[in-house]
Amino acid sequence: MSNFAQRMTAMEKSAKIIRNLFGAMNDPGIISFGGGAPAKEALPIDIVREIANEVMRADKRGVEALQYGPVMGAADLREAVVNDLLAPKGVAASVDNIMITSGGLETMNLMCQLFIDPGDVILVESPSFVHCVEIFEMFQANCIAVDMDDNGMIPEDLEAKILKYRPKMVYVIPTFQNPTGRTLSLDRRQKIAEMGSRYDVIILEDDPYRDIRYSGSDLLPIKAFDQTGHTVLANSFSKIFSPGSRLGYALANDEITSRLFDAKTATNSHTSMLPQVICAEFFKRGYYPAHHRMICDLYRERRDIMIECIDKYFPEGTKRTFPDGGLFTWAELPEGINTTELLVEAVTDPDVKVAYVAGEGFFTEGNGAGSNCMRISFGNSAPEKIKTGIERLGRLICSKL
Amino acid sequence: MSNFAQRMTAMEKSAKIIRNLFGAMNDPGIISFGGGAPAKEALPIDIVREIANEVMRADKRGVEALQYGPVMGAADLREAVVNDLLAPKGVAASVDNIMITSGGLETMNLMCQLFIDPGDVILVESPSFVHCVEIFEMFQANCIAVDMDDNGMIPEDLEAKILKYRPKMVYVIPTFQNPTGRTLSLDRRQKIAEMGSRYDVIILEDDPYRDIRYSGSDLLPIKAFDQTGHTVLANSFSKIFSPGSRLGYALANDEITSRLFDAKTATNSHTSMLPQVICAEFFKRGYYPAHHRMICDLYRERRDIMIECIDKYFPEGTKRTFPDGGLFTWAELPEGINTTELLVEAVTDPDVKVAYVAGEGFFTEGNGAGSNCMRISFGNSAPEKIKTGIERLGRLICSKL
Repeated sequence: MSNFAQRMTAMEKSAKIIRNLFGAMNDPGIISFGGGAPAKEALPIDIVREIANEVMRADKRGVEALQYGPVMGAADLREAVVNDLLAPKGVAASVDNIMITSGGLETMNLMCQLFIDPGDVILVESPSFVHCVEIFEMFQANCIAVDMDDNGMIPEDLEAKILKYRPKMVYVIPTFQNPTGRTLSLDRRQKIAEMGSRYDVIILEDDPYRDIRYSGSDLLPIKAFDQTGHTVLANSFSKIFSPGSRLGYALANDEITSRLFDAKTATNSHTSMLPQVICAEFFKRGYYPAHHRMICDLYRERRDIMIECIDKYFPEGTKRTFPDGGLFTWAELPEGINTTELLVEAVTDPDVKVAYVAGEGFFTEGNGAGSNCMRISFGNSAPEKIKTGIERLGRLICSKL
Repeated sequence: MSNFAQRMTAMEKSAKIIRNLFGAMNDPGIISFGGGAPAKEALPIDIVREIANEVMRADKRGVEALQYGPVMGAADLREAVVNDLLAPKGVAASVDNIMITSGGLETMNLMCQLFIDPGDVILVESPSFVHCVEIFEMFQANCIAVDMDDNGMIPEDLEAKILKYRPKMVYVIPTFQNPTGRTLSLDRRQKIAEMGSRYDVIILEDDPYRDIRYSGSDLLPIKAFDQTGHTVLANSFSKIFSPGSRLGYALANDEITSRLFDAKTATNSHTSMLPQVICAEFFKRGYYPAHHRMICDLYRERRDIMIECIDKYFPEGTKRTFPDGGLFTWAELPEGINTTELLVEAVTDPDVKVAYVAGEGFFTEGNGAGSNCMRISFGNSAPEKIKTGIERLGRLICSKL
């Protein structure tokens, strides 16, 4: 009985990478710069208790929180998206075009339901987020990598590949990208939006890190330059509220939104109401601004320490990004060091016991690209652990040269 | 820009039925026997507040409830499934084979991810649950109806259609079926499990109503007769805890479970942790037995009144089922009455203002079957409303004869 659908074979490679990733992260004796989880200090536990205690009554929002809810999501959470998250970032949107999803990633799944037939091409950044590549491969998409530099996806290469491959979609993480921490420059954002319109290609803009910026200035999202509805904006509450709540949202034009309604209905009817109601109250009661300042201060300190330690302990010839926000930096080690092989030693050597994510898995090309790279997360480790961990990791790397 | 995937066309018919269904239900001036929602009196609002107040602390389960969680679901909720829900019903299961899903329906979506290539056949009951048919059609499955009688799906017709169509899956709601309220007899359960094994067909047993039984005796699920792992059991917390929490579970063999892990990862990573933690505590703290008695008493009364009123007010020649549990009864009116046309009048006539679900949409055959049938939900209306609504509806029906 292994009469599985073809998509299960198509996704095997990335599924294996993901399974391995998640497996290694859970050893409590390890200092893990691997996962992309927010700091536990950034979780609004007390606020959630306070809100639940207040609204979980039959005469308040208790019935709404536990009864079946709307496919599109709770009305006031959608309003919070429009007013508290999009408007301040320069995006004018109607509540009717916002769908609440079960985590940011679900939007990628739903967008594939809408647009991807087996064999369709999706252009992705090189490197890109392996978890989304897994989704695309489950839909039997053909993922083709577009070159990046320090300013993100390179428009000239994107245009050439649009013309060559006639893709259905372009998947881009414009701000503090996963895995590199890089940010797409403003003029490229405009160019990419225009290419979506000109070539009739969906630009799937996945922007879960944009709201946690620690330095530099906000940039308008690609969606702000979209004149034709070809750009769909996906975002998440994972980094600003809680990842375990699995809350995200999509902003799309009317036609796509009505299809998202159908695909969401046929996926899980609607997103869990209890977290939606509590998250909506989190915004309505004005908790967000202070919480947001607190988490940005927390992560800024961790980023600064991480960067300082990498510069101090990693060998000469290392290149690393300086992310203005988000949770990751990306280090390119001197040639000859294979980070996939090194990882085994890093997590098992009793003098090291440090985890990161090896770079190779983020490259869909599969030609050895990224084999000397690593994604290092600074979000989930206290400053002292960052110092200890990076010192140990640096020592291990230097011993290989 | 309407370059949608082929599956979006495949699902159009059932998506339209569902959109219409959900649209009509929300007029507060209407007595609605339409939706399948539990009674608001059956929602454990106070219990949820109490639990949230107690466990949402950093030193208790607060971090777990808000941080990323395991793909398979919270460990103790999976244990509650094994010990509190499956063992008492005669199903021995390992926690390793339980996955928590985002509502019962998500299991159907995930199972299609695993098994359905476009054009594959799924055998469904005639009539079947239109929401799941929508899911199957999104995966471009070819849904073929199997005949039912008062004891559920007829094994002889099932076997003939397995041999004729070589299906990938058989979808069956064995207990208090949606829409008919019928229950599959014990010997048929065994026969269907055996056919799954003999013919290498997945039996997808969707059993969300089994835990709310008001009369008669429990029957072993199909899964209890499964010797080969061909049966996958899907269930839901919607009827016994809260539908808006979107919590369900799947029980499958090792091979299928490991693929469910991949498909779930590529759908939404994992189910929202906050409702999982609270639901797990609902079982661990022993709230379930008393809550379960309360909701069964509530629904039993409503069912009895509903049946009494149908017998009293519907015209002679009406056939209706007597469901021993669940939320629905199914009425077959005298020939010549078209329930789809009648519904328009029933919801708009100021002397009626009653909604139900017309029968036709539940039949995948599309040959007019069920055109004189209606699904009537008794769960979500107080006894007085049931009396008033059925009297009015009966009067309208009688006026057409």
